[in-house]
Amino acid sequence: MTTAKTGPSVGRLTSPLVEALKAEADELRLAVSTGPLGCRLIDAGATVRGSIEAGRRLTEICLGGLGRVSIVPSPSTPAWPFAIQVSSLDPVVACLGSQYAGWSLAGGEDDGGWFALGSGPARATFAKEDIYADIGYRDNADTAVLVLETAAPPPESVVKQVADATGCRPGALTFIYAPTQSLAGATQVVGRVLEVALHKVHTLHFPLDRVIDGIGIAPLSPPSPDFITAMGRTNDAIIYAGRVHLYVTGPEDEARELAAKLPSSGSRDYGSPFAEVFSRFNGDFYAIDPMLFSPAEVVVTAVDSGRSFRGGAVALDLLDASFS
Amino acid sequence: MTTAKTGPSVGRLTSPLVEALKAEADELRLAVSTGPLGCRLIDAGATVRGSIEAGRRLTEICLGGLGRVSIVPSPSTPAWPFAIQVSSLDPVVACLGSQYAGWSLAGGEDDGGWFALGSGPARATFAKEDIYADIGYRDNADTAVLVLETAAPPPESVVKQVADATGCRPGALTFIYAPTQSLAGATQVVGRVLEVALHKVHTLHFPLDRVIDGIGIAPLSPPSPDFITAMGRTNDAIIYAGRVHLYVTGPEDEARELAAKLPSSGSRDYGSPFAEVFSRFNGDFYAIDPMLFSPAEVVVTAVDSGRSFRGGAVALDLLDASFS
Amino acid sequence: MTTAKTGPSVGRLTSPLVEALKAEADELRLAVSTGPLGCRLIDAGATVRGSIEAGRRLTEICLGGLGRVSIVPSPSTPAWPFAIQVSSLDPVVACLGSQYAGWSLAGGEDDGGWFALGSGPARATFAKEDIYADIGYRDNADTAVLVLETAAPPPESVVKQVADATGCRPGALTFIYAPTQSLAGATQVVGRVLEVALHKVHTLHFPLDRVIDGIGIAPLSPPSPDFITAMGRTNDAIIYAGRVHLYVTGPEDEARELAAKLPSSGSRDYGSPFAEVFSRFNGDFYAIDPMLFSPAEVVVTAVDSGRSFRGGAVALDLLDASFS
Repeated sequence: MTTAKTGPSVGRLTSPLVEALKAEADELRLAVSTGPLGCRLIDAGATVRGSIEAGRRLTEICLGGLGRVSIVPSPSTPAWPFAIQVSSLDPVVACLGSQYAGWSLAGGEDDGGWFALGSGPARATFAKEDIYADIGYRDNADTAVLVLETAAPPPESVVKQVADATGCRPGALTFIYAPTQSLAGATQVVGRVLEVALHKVHTLHFPLDRVIDGIGIAPLSPPSPDFITAMGRTNDAIIYAGRVHLYVTGPEDEARELAAKLPSSGSRDYGSPFAEVFSRFNGDFYAIDPMLFSPAEVVVTAVDSGRSFRGGAVALDLLDASFS
Repeated sequence: MTTAKTGPSVGRLTSPLVEALKAEADELRLAVSTGPLGCRLIDAGATVRGSIEAGRRLTEICLGGLGRVSIVPSPSTPAWPFAIQVSSLDPVVACLGSQYAGWSLAGGEDDGGWFALGSGPARATFAKEDIYADIGYRDNADTAVLVLETAAPPPESVVKQVADATGCRPGALTFIYAPTQSLAGATQVVGRVLEVALHKVHTLHFPLDRVIDGIGIAPLSPPSPDFITAMGRTNDAIIYAGRVHLYVTGPEDEARELAAKLPSSGSRDYGSPFAEVFSRFNGDFYAIDPMLFSPAEVVVTAVDSGRSFRGGAVALDLLDASFS
Repeated sequence: MTTAKTGPSVGRLTSPLVEALKAEADELRLAVSTGPLGCRLIDAGATVRGSIEAGRRLTEICLGGLGRVSIVPSPSTPAWPFAIQVSSLDPVVACLGSQYAGWSLAGGEDDGGWFALGSGPARATFAKEDIYADIGYRDNADTAVLVLETAAPPPESVVKQVADATGCRPGALTFIYAPTQSLAGATQVVGRVLEVALHKVHTLHFPLDRVIDGIGIAPLSPPSPDFITAMGRTNDAIIYAGRVHLYVTGPEDEARELAAKLPSSGSRDYGSPFAEVFSRFNGDFYAIDPMLFSPAEVVVTAVDSGRSFRGGAVALDLLDASFS
């Protein structure tokens, strides 16, 4: 493991964002309650309506307070007029150290098979996922927040697991949850457009410490009551219409190669709406080519040479096939 | 009348926005003064220059603190590079319960025929307009703010009328006024792009409680010293170039029908700059087809089925005919 | 000299922005230190990475707290997806009275030939540049901030010069510096798109007090380690892809003439990437036609007649030749 970076505490940076979410829960159509062991639960789309704005804020919380997220016009998808734009001060820490949904949480059998992937700053306080060795970052905040793409709050066993893993009191834990089918849930998943790029950068073995800045945009995906459709659309928003600009250090030929390999179009499974790909593999997520999970179009600027390279393109027909 | 929703108080949410407007009046080129019966007057464009930014803030005030308003690039109107984008946490309460200019205020003969339509959170504290029965919302704030599209401040009789109607002390009332010909006045009217859509949704008898989210955009209209031209342009910005995405619950065929009927293009009077239509009817506003007042282009997502429907299109030639 | 306007103090409006920059220096990847005579130094890109977000904030600081700056999608440059958008409450004071890099600062021979052009609110407290006579504005803040497009902090002699000129204690001075080659440096220079337009308005002898509002946008320029290339690109972002909308008072034929003369395309030296122009004149900046420094495309609205005029166009081929 590399030495952990000193650096901003994603947990501490996120606290005011979570406090604001609670304070404005009524306007944002969220429900705040006390859960198992005294943890705080925020329902952002399961039994409440939530809102796109709530999804925007969940995205900023996922980014550990190191990102700016805005709802903007979408110039490259004329039929889908609005998009979510994500920029980050430190894309590696914000996206991989906090936003990536990498903490696999599961309740016991007594909990009816509760399962979710945790995203957000609590991951960095736990910091036992493999990726933390690679990014050399961990946090020591004494509060912890997780965002969960699910309709059910975590059971007591999971709350205890997170408390133990982070060293935080259960009363200092906040779980924010919204299913993919909800406005906030869909929005916060599409808000992963930059994170998905960073994750593929890592998969391609491009050194993460050479990614020094980045901005991403993807169209807001229309929610669907069907989970597979909803999930498919959030992926398609990124895979077929996401655009990312990364700024990297190092040799320009490596930046060129990164730009060529990074877009989704290089994947074996590119070319159909994600829900179809998912069905083709009988719902086995891990059978899908991991290279599919990336933005449609990328620009990579090699700051040490000053040259920019590009790859991929927005595929409006595939986007429309998915969103309509 | 349906039972009034409990929910956010648009009056209380707006107070900090009004305080900020006063505190930054100098930078925003506004004039703050004390008016009849000790009410607060904010001139945003009558005897002062005001600014587009002041208009953006007036829009957020009109929306009762439940909206986010930003000046953004305008991808669908290449000749008119900037637009106002409006998103709302709760479009029905924000747009119809607060922003809609539905409170008809008139002074007596002694007041020289002062007349204006009031917009903003004070309407919800009054809550006697018919629409409040339909949306089931009222506010109980003890301060009240009205935004007026006019060059003259309200006379004492009107201030008294608003105080009586809202139950607020005259000293707790703020009237913000700017004529349509001013930068701030034009901006805050174009900022009604989402509200106009909601109002037509209501006119079409689509149940308002089924509109759960929405975002709108329309190009900033160039001000004109001529009232008819200025008013025409603010309408044309919406009618010929406004774009709105609504998210609704309920049967998808009703969403499809809404998307078909909602755009301005379905109106009998569609096809000429608004100032021409207005002249054709000899300035009789109420003779104009009410169906004309709606965005050029809409996307309606039926969240219960996940399908999206669209209607209308931006008409650049008509926009240019109006704006140039 | 005309009488100095009373008006907002750019120095005082900027103080909270500078304090926020210091407080978030770690996240923004800036280095804060104490410099000669106890002044405050903020390195935003010389020995630190900085970030595009830091550049956005530097731009708001340069504008003296009178501007709103955002990173937005760039509808008119499809290959370069993101842009910086600048709007200002009072473009003349914000852009010319504060942002313009008009204060020529140089150390003595002992200082190894340190030289930089100072931008930001401290200029208005000094207020001895010729332009202050023309805009009739000066500030009396007791703190002073300068943004410097350079890799080296100012030497003691320069700190003393700025303290003497502004009447501020050295300990009340903040110098923020970032070279053009850095993310923040490039961003804050492209963020001059509106200022460059205003400066040319002035050069064309159009009365500045008739420019009452304005908004500008230009694509983020990819940084380059080569100073000439980096500087060329920041200029080209504006010259070949900047777009500005100005609102002016006065006769409409003067607005028409302004729109015709304002774009860069009217310049003798238009048509090559800026770095080539610079080489052609052997690096003699002052030999280049000053008319080249302006946005590619302008819309000028004559608010007293209501008519809008346009000139110029985005030149994607020249932009790509520069940025690639």
